[in-house]
Amino acid sequence: MKNIAVILSGSGVFDGSEIYESVLTFLRLEHHGVRYQCFAPNIEQLHVINHLTGEVAAGEKRNVLVEAARLARGEVKDLAAADADAFDALIIPGGFGAAKNLSDFAVNGPECTINEDLLRFAHAIRQAGKPVGLICIAPAMTPKLLGTGIRCTIGTDEGVAGAINHMGGEHVNCPVDQIVVDDQHNVISTPAYMLAGSISEAASGINRLVDEVIKRA
Amino acid sequence: MKNIAVILSGSGVFDGSEIYESVLTFLRLEHHGVRYQCFAPNIEQLHVINHLTGEVAAGEKRNVLVEAARLARGEVKDLAAADADAFDALIIPGGFGAAKNLSDFAVNGPECTINEDLLRFAHAIRQAGKPVGLICIAPAMTPKLLGTGIRCTIGTDEGVAGAINHMGGEHVNCPVDQIVVDDQHNVISTPAYMLAGSISEAASGINRLVDEVIKRA
Repeated sequence: MKNIAVILSGSGVFDGSEIYESVLTFLRLEHHGVRYQCFAPNIEQLHVINHLTGEVAAGEKRNVLVEAARLARGEVKDLAAADADAFDALIIPGGFGAAKNLSDFAVNGPECTINEDLLRFAHAIRQAGKPVGLICIAPAMTPKLLGTGIRCTIGTDEGVAGAINHMGGEHVNCPVDQIVVDDQHNVISTPAYMLAGSISEAASGINRLVDEVIKRA
Repeated sequence: MKNIAVILSGSGVFDGSEIYESVLTFLRLEHHGVRYQCFAPNIEQLHVINHLTGEVAAGEKRNVLVEAARLARGEVKDLAAADADAFDALIIPGGFGAAKNLSDFAVNGPECTINEDLLRFAHAIRQAGKPVGLICIAPAMTPKLLGTGIRCTIGTDEGVAGAINHMGGEHVNCPVDQIVVDDQHNVISTPAYMLAGSISEAASGINRLVDEVIKRA
């Protein structure tokens, strides 16, 4: 049975993993009878956002792995312990956590760096030729995470698209219900909540992405 | 267009709303083209549970409304302002938040009391003859929330079933993919994660519950 690693970055769109995108990913993997294991880095969040007001909760601190456990009903492991040999593919849902905790793209844009444990794991997955699926804002990490010259999409946002191209990536505009496949590098991406106006719109692209990742896994 | 109120109790199975049950509810409502609005009480959580260890996070405090906003991408309102006239039905997903924040069932069992704002809103919905859907552990509130003599299910847990009966309810055992309908009182319930071993198992009962609530709304 195929086994897929899903990397979470907290729990909540503004400072962690986008909850709907993560649950839709799990649901589609289950739909295909595919196993998955969630991982998250055992680090402090960049910050905590009050999701009611959109403002930073001054002085509050939360751990990415601990908060990701909310999204996984406790079934999440430290990314530092992830062994790429045990997995057939890697999927990273979106949410600002991808740009704040898995990388510092939200702060440093094209000068961003990637979490060391994620970098190690993603390199091992890539070197084994296994597919990588990136959702929503997560594809902004593509050039730094997986290498330059890889086609990907974050939808149609010109600022983020420009940053991806500046880092040596190749951004392709894409509607919410479609995916961009880089066949050579085995990287699949979809805009999800970079464009979605509803959960079902996000699902339309995420389901295609998960299907394509499984097909290639 | 029908408009349904969904009451959240935080974000995370052990101290708030069960995330998968909530998202599955939203997804099914959207599937039917039904509008919904999330509400949550503007109160402090009973406590914060570290979802990685299952232990109480000593000294940490979180607000139910603010945490529920994570599950609703910010689109949640204070339950105190909810007007039953504006809604055709009420659904409460599970998660321990229903027994810790919406009520104190987790602490006081059959001697529990219900949050005042929820009580007011649910009474108005009931008096108007509109349907109420209760998921997972939320039906444990039924006798105190909606009145005695109402059939409901939390699956097969004997302790919780006994407490419901002790309070004057009528518990009915039910498998995960089914619902219990009290036709006279217009109350629908399903076990979800009281029994579910997977998201799709939870979905099997939740989809039926949402369908039935919409049919009656």
